[in-house]
Amino acid sequence: MDLIIKNCKIASSTGLISAGLAIDSSKIVSIAKDVLLPAADKAIDCKGNLVLPGGIDFHVHLMDLGYAYREDWRTGTESAAAGGTTFVVGLGHTNPPSTTRENLRKIIEMAKRKAIVDFRINGAVTAHNLEELPKLAGEGVSTFGEIYMAESIPELEMVEDGVLLEAFKIIRNLDCLAGVHAEDWGIISYLAEKLKKAGRKDPLAHPESRPDIAEEEAISKALLFARRTGVRLHIFHLTTKAGLELIEKARKSGQDISCEVCTHHLLFKREDMKEYGPYLKCNPPIRSEENRRSLWEGLRKGTIDMVSTDHWPLPKSDKEVGWKDIWKAGAGMPGVETRIPLMLTYGVQKKRISMRTLLEVASENPAKRLGLYPRKGVIAVGSDADLTVVNLKEKTKIKAEKMHTKCEFTPYEGWEVVGMPYLTLVRGKVVMEGGEIISKPGYGTYIQRD
Amino acid sequence: MDLIIKNCKIASSTGLISAGLAIDSSKIVSIAKDVLLPAADKAIDCKGNLVLPGGIDFHVHLMDLGYAYREDWRTGTESAAAGGTTFVVGLGHTNPPSTTRENLRKIIEMAKRKAIVDFRINGAVTAHNLEELPKLAGEGVSTFGEIYMAESIPELEMVEDGVLLEAFKIIRNLDCLAGVHAEDWGIISYLAEKLKKAGRKDPLAHPESRPDIAEEEAISKALLFARRTGVRLHIFHLTTKAGLELIEKARKSGQDISCEVCTHHLLFKREDMKEYGPYLKCNPPIRSEENRRSLWEGLRKGTIDMVSTDHWPLPKSDKEVGWKDIWKAGAGMPGVETRIPLMLTYGVQKKRISMRTLLEVASENPAKRLGLYPRKGVIAVGSDADLTVVNLKEKTKIKAEKMHTKCEFTPYEGWEVVGMPYLTLVRGKVVMEGGEIISKPGYGTYIQRD
Amino acid sequence: MDLIIKNCKIASSTGLISAGLAIDSSKIVSIAKDVLLPAADKAIDCKGNLVLPGGIDFHVHLMDLGYAYREDWRTGTESAAAGGTTFVVGLGHTNPPSTTRENLRKIIEMAKRKAIVDFRINGAVTAHNLEELPKLAGEGVSTFGEIYMAESIPELEMVEDGVLLEAFKIIRNLDCLAGVHAEDWGIISYLAEKLKKAGRKDPLAHPESRPDIAEEEAISKALLFARRTGVRLHIFHLTTKAGLELIEKARKSGQDISCEVCTHHLLFKREDMKEYGPYLKCNPPIRSEENRRSLWEGLRKGTIDMVSTDHWPLPKSDKEVGWKDIWKAGAGMPGVETRIPLMLTYGVQKKRISMRTLLEVASENPAKRLGLYPRKGVIAVGSDADLTVVNLKEKTKIKAEKMHTKCEFTPYEGWEVVGMPYLTLVRGKVVMEGGEIISKPGYGTYIQRD
Amino acid sequence: MDLIIKNCKIASSTGLISAGLAIDSSKIVSIAKDVLLPAADKAIDCKGNLVLPGGIDFHVHLMDLGYAYREDWRTGTESAAAGGTTFVVGLGHTNPPSTTRENLRKIIEMAKRKAIVDFRINGAVTAHNLEELPKLAGEGVSTFGEIYMAESIPELEMVEDGVLLEAFKIIRNLDCLAGVHAEDWGIISYLAEKLKKAGRKDPLAHPESRPDIAEEEAISKALLFARRTGVRLHIFHLTTKAGLELIEKARKSGQDISCEVCTHHLLFKREDMKEYGPYLKCNPPIRSEENRRSLWEGLRKGTIDMVSTDHWPLPKSDKEVGWKDIWKAGAGMPGVETRIPLMLTYGVQKKRISMRTLLEVASENPAKRLGLYPRKGVIAVGSDADLTVVNLKEKTKIKAEKMHTKCEFTPYEGWEVVGMPYLTLVRGKVVMEGGEIISKPGYGTYIQRD
Repeated sequence: MDLIIKNCKIASSTGLISAGLAIDSSKIVSIAKDVLLPAADKAIDCKGNLVLPGGIDFHVHLMDLGYAYREDWRTGTESAAAGGTTFVVGLGHTNPPSTTRENLRKIIEMAKRKAIVDFRINGAVTAHNLEELPKLAGEGVSTFGEIYMAESIPELEMVEDGVLLEAFKIIRNLDCLAGVHAEDWGIISYLAEKLKKAGRKDPLAHPESRPDIAEEEAISKALLFARRTGVRLHIFHLTTKAGLELIEKARKSGQDISCEVCTHHLLFKREDMKEYGPYLKCNPPIRSEENRRSLWEGLRKGTIDMVSTDHWPLPKSDKEVGWKDIWKAGAGMPGVETRIPLMLTYGVQKKRISMRTLLEVASENPAKRLGLYPRKGVIAVGSDADLTVVNLKEKTKIKAEKMHTKCEFTPYEGWEVVGMPYLTLVRGKVVMEGGEIISKPGYGTYIQRD
Repeated sequence: MDLIIKNCKIASSTGLISAGLAIDSSKIVSIAKDVLLPAADKAIDCKGNLVLPGGIDFHVHLMDLGYAYREDWRTGTESAAAGGTTFVVGLGHTNPPSTTRENLRKIIEMAKRKAIVDFRINGAVTAHNLEELPKLAGEGVSTFGEIYMAESIPELEMVEDGVLLEAFKIIRNLDCLAGVHAEDWGIISYLAEKLKKAGRKDPLAHPESRPDIAEEEAISKALLFARRTGVRLHIFHLTTKAGLELIEKARKSGQDISCEVCTHHLLFKREDMKEYGPYLKCNPPIRSEENRRSLWEGLRKGTIDMVSTDHWPLPKSDKEVGWKDIWKAGAGMPGVETRIPLMLTYGVQKKRISMRTLLEVASENPAKRLGLYPRKGVIAVGSDADLTVVNLKEKTKIKAEKMHTKCEFTPYEGWEVVGMPYLTLVRGKVVMEGGEIISKPGYGTYIQRD
Repeated sequence: MDLIIKNCKIASSTGLISAGLAIDSSKIVSIAKDVLLPAADKAIDCKGNLVLPGGIDFHVHLMDLGYAYREDWRTGTESAAAGGTTFVVGLGHTNPPSTTRENLRKIIEMAKRKAIVDFRINGAVTAHNLEELPKLAGEGVSTFGEIYMAESIPELEMVEDGVLLEAFKIIRNLDCLAGVHAEDWGIISYLAEKLKKAGRKDPLAHPESRPDIAEEEAISKALLFARRTGVRLHIFHLTTKAGLELIEKARKSGQDISCEVCTHHLLFKREDMKEYGPYLKCNPPIRSEENRRSLWEGLRKGTIDMVSTDHWPLPKSDKEVGWKDIWKAGAGMPGVETRIPLMLTYGVQKKRISMRTLLEVASENPAKRLGLYPRKGVIAVGSDADLTVVNLKEKTKIKAEKMHTKCEFTPYEGWEVVGMPYLTLVRGKVVMEGGEIISKPGYGTYIQRD
Repeated sequence: MDLIIKNCKIASSTGLISAGLAIDSSKIVSIAKDVLLPAADKAIDCKGNLVLPGGIDFHVHLMDLGYAYREDWRTGTESAAAGGTTFVVGLGHTNPPSTTRENLRKIIEMAKRKAIVDFRINGAVTAHNLEELPKLAGEGVSTFGEIYMAESIPELEMVEDGVLLEAFKIIRNLDCLAGVHAEDWGIISYLAEKLKKAGRKDPLAHPESRPDIAEEEAISKALLFARRTGVRLHIFHLTTKAGLELIEKARKSGQDISCEVCTHHLLFKREDMKEYGPYLKCNPPIRSEENRRSLWEGLRKGTIDMVSTDHWPLPKSDKEVGWKDIWKAGAGMPGVETRIPLMLTYGVQKKRISMRTLLEVASENPAKRLGLYPRKGVIAVGSDADLTVVNLKEKTKIKAEKMHTKCEFTPYEGWEVVGMPYLTLVRGKVVMEGGEIISKPGYGTYIQRD
């Protein structure tokens, strides 16, 4: 026996179970009252703390190749492990991006050398790589996207409607998932231009240039195209009540859709941009309080499947320039290290969602959408021993300087949370303990689709 | 008394009334049993034929300025009168188009000099004339459009989503109607390119490049933007079942929408392109039989408000080039002269629609949408004496050479119809009799919005 | 020419027309500017007043046989004529009721002798006369009902669900209309018993015993049974918002339903029972303000097809006993004489409904549901000259003592109205003028279904 | 350690887990790979067979008091145990029934003396015991019903609508569940009478007297009353597609409803009555193939929450009389002993439902609706060791003579099934092994609501 973990409150679909775990050869082999646990090489006493299935983050940007100075697969996955996340989906929006088999292989190789948690990589889609999609699927890709319906990064131009529709057809034939960044560029580019002409450079000009209707129209279009092609659809970083209502309606009609919300869209409202300025610049933007509330409601009702982070680290200087001119600031923020404690604190503890819902949105549903359940995403005999242990009684202040990401800031600086992970295991091996990274780079494995 | 018309079957909302009419100073002043009609300067005996309210065509392209060789306001309105239509809405898609007050005034002046039926002109919308819209409304415009959601003619570039949304806001504040050409250019341009690359030049390549979903997505977007801005919306030339369903749903939810179908979309199906080739090229294209049936069903149920023509004459040479390369052919066809007999023959006589529905879609509903009802669009005491008399028993073969339009062809060449108008009155004056134009150019008046 | 009426404002579907009418052999033969009217035996000058199509009341109880002391066909139709109503549907809830061919013939004979306006009689339905329904249809019946889903009068026991379903099947096969009194007796009888046991005898105990849900459940059931049998359905005296919503939903799904609201349910609210006591006792009862508002809204939106009266005269003594014990009071009230002026005053003049809507709900829609349109229900050349003329500027106080009904009270005692009819014509003959009945009994004719 | 069970395929929400179980003091204390199981007083080797959570049957009729000759709590629960069911809900439709605290206590006492599986008892509802409902809740009742909307048994008259509505209000205030037998008696009584008059006595006359619409109307009413009172609702023995659609719609709108289907409605169709005659007589009756299919579809989609049995044993003679006159036959049939193998065979093995769905409908969902989850209804550390072991490879023929119920017949006589339980444990104690009952009467405990 490799390891026993005792004195746990194990988070499961039936509630919290007071018991211990035995782990052997990377798998959970026993869930039992402590006294019944076998002898083992090593024993950890959880002291009654909460043991969660390792988090799965469906949406992170780790930026080898090309932007390793922002985040590489070592720092990014160390940040994940420190935050209780044991599996990440990297979106491959690097330079070059995951648009070809060759590029994808390079990204995977880089990640294999550096990662300390398990991972998969998404395929990228542009007008020019449609014939590569089957090859990418052949390398193990299960999700294509985020497919940009609005301009975003230099390496990945947005796709026009004809390309989107064609891509959906191809992805459906590959039986993969199509994931979209749903914003209508026609609206955004017009408004941004107008605001710039009017001399607006203040932080609030950014969300003003990307109104709710830009997301609503793009989601409406993506749902229509998915319905007509039969592709399974994922909506990345949902932010609006209107979009949520479209998704609910489509789902009731039987469409196969998933959607995610990002931590920062749950925890900030547009007015906060006055204080936080460019640090809250992101796409889609931070929205109104009404939208924010509807997102929590969507989690509660189960319409929103996942909480992801859109983890996008940037140098502080890329943000600071935005105080004078918001258009110049980089968009995006880190998040993979804070997702779970924030959801425990502002979600479960504030009774916005139940513990059961947390398990679903942080681990179980992403695992299912990746085809990895019940191997991952749940604590069960026979499953991978991907776990994180948190203390719900100890309060911690979030500080960027203590984080493992390369990013020098966090929007949650100074926020008090409970449930900061103090122990994380990937396949039965402790990779983080007490905030310290234990694992060597390269322990993480690439897990392709079946 | 100027005129009495006796021995009529008057088409009214209560059914066919056997009676006569008296007309004085351009108005109907009596509907009465013939023996009760007053003495008059002139008397016409209808011999028991059907008297319809003059047709109103909500969508015609008369092409002074710039394209008078295709059709000018004289030939176009003579063609209308010969077809039983006493009021036309010209879309102002000329060169220059009705994008500015100055241009609009020029078009109106030209029309005033030439027209023999009454008319109104729509305002045109592009990214560059939004500030002119209030001025256009000030000249009497009540409808803006067709606003191009897809590229169409050189003078009027398509509008991007941001412009569309902004235009809708402005038009709503002017309390006008926004009318859209609803096709998604992103889909069409991609598919056209692909088909061209594949060497396709045959007639069916054209409809293939503009699939149903291109209309469905555009209508979906237009409905959303209209809902969010509160503008009253008109969908020009609806062609798809999917689009119709979206309109039905939106209307049930209380949105203020109207839509029209064109005669050719009711009477041709895609396969006919094999025989008719470039002569059936039009945008949106001729569609499948299933779509065609749903359009008749929409008329029957009242979901479709009007039958219009999108009258767009072209030299025969512009069509003929399309036999070798469909992409080179001009899109569009004439229609204003055949609308009413075709609807009487293939609609009413074939029992696809009732006579009551014909009155609504050919006259009453367009009049209402123009704010002209009951002054126009109905036969009633006090209303303008805009009338046309048709013989439902006499069969006529449609022939281009007998038409009054400059267009040298008609897609209905050789079709047999009943109900070809033999008498048309505008404001109590006979403008056409037995196929001959009686009126001098310039009798038609510009009727601006109230 | 029998008669001309000049200087009119004629109410028509196109608006108010300033013109005159000529009438010959009971029909309208001319609508024309006054100067064009022919010479006639008699001329009436309307002095610019409003000429309405004669009212059609879809729901009156004239009580020959058996209860002529309450109202007979002479007083009842004189009351109708005085109120501008030229056609009544008698429900045949007499003693004996219209359950058999023999009874129906007796009722018709009685009515023919006495009536001064035209009429039809409904067939009655009980568990015991199902085999008579075809015979009743054979006598000219087009509507069966009100079919009692709750106990109401001694002569017509309520029908159990199995009978209702069977009756619907039979009525559908006769292509007739099934009309229901939609209240759930299971709820009412339970609550009435409970209230009685609790000692309640006050006026408000009556509506309390018949809550909204009793109507909602009964309408729900009637709609279901009609949907499953395919019968065309009429809901008599709708009173609840919940019921209206069910009807709207069913209609949107394509079901053939009509419904009516009674004047008193539009004009009184439950709290008024404190003041009016037993005089407002009726079934279904007077409801809450919220319901009352929704009924006006239903008229406005066109969901409610007709305004009827459920005219049910009673001796004052039958009401007075209710002050001490509401259970002992008779239910019902007169209405046929006040319907049109009340709707003109509290509907049109207060802008709750348009004049167009008034024409539909008071005349046009009932005529259509009876299969009598456009012979009746509209002012048009060729239609029956059923007309009433009202003065919208003159105010009148409603007084029971001036009414023509046998009923000694009216709930509207002392209410000020405009538009009290001062001239009523049935088939071109003046039957009422200046409040005086001109016609002899027996002028009214029985008009059976085609 | 009391017991270990090894070499299992444990059925869980994450799939089938190859592992063993340890049980101590009635609870599951370990789920672990076999080698990790502790030493124990006793060990059972499952030989790789399937271990299911003990079945929970939400609807059985055990007939002490008054009808013990049909089934008593000993034979009934032995039958349950033999069929893999470890918890039954007795409906208390005995003589006297569970209408009063006194009666309920008597039933509980009887059950406590005889039962070998755990149980709860429902409260009964009539017009006469509404004031007893709070007292029944005080004794531990969580569900009231089946409340008869149609006449059924002499002891429990059907409730009129007013009583139903009042009962719902009371039950809601007690925070209990209202369960209805949803058939419209008005329809049934009428049709039965009619059929009898027509001389019909054949088996098919029975289902003909209880058409789909009788259930549809009753469910529609129950849903409406539940919506208006806010009570949580349970629909017993759903049988129609129409009813299912109503439930789906209500649930989508947010109503708190559960429903069950009975094994016999899943496995027989109406035409089978020709062969099986009175043995298939039950209420609601066996339905058409279309209905039967929709019930499987409802299970698949999760709209139907549970499979129950409506276990209602009868002497064979009560059935045999029905061959000559179906009206004389008793309605009902046994089922608790065959539910799980039938569902494994005709559901899971025939791929109509997944194993996951079986767990939900046979154990998990009933446990949740009883407020007993995760104590019961699932195999998890800390849960009650209620288990049954089945062999999916061994085929068994169902024979009434081998059953443990007093009932001398089973409708499934001669049917071949897999998965006949060969071991059943209640709270860690083997109560049945190899078809033999091991437990003494009285081991079963009454588990009242929290």
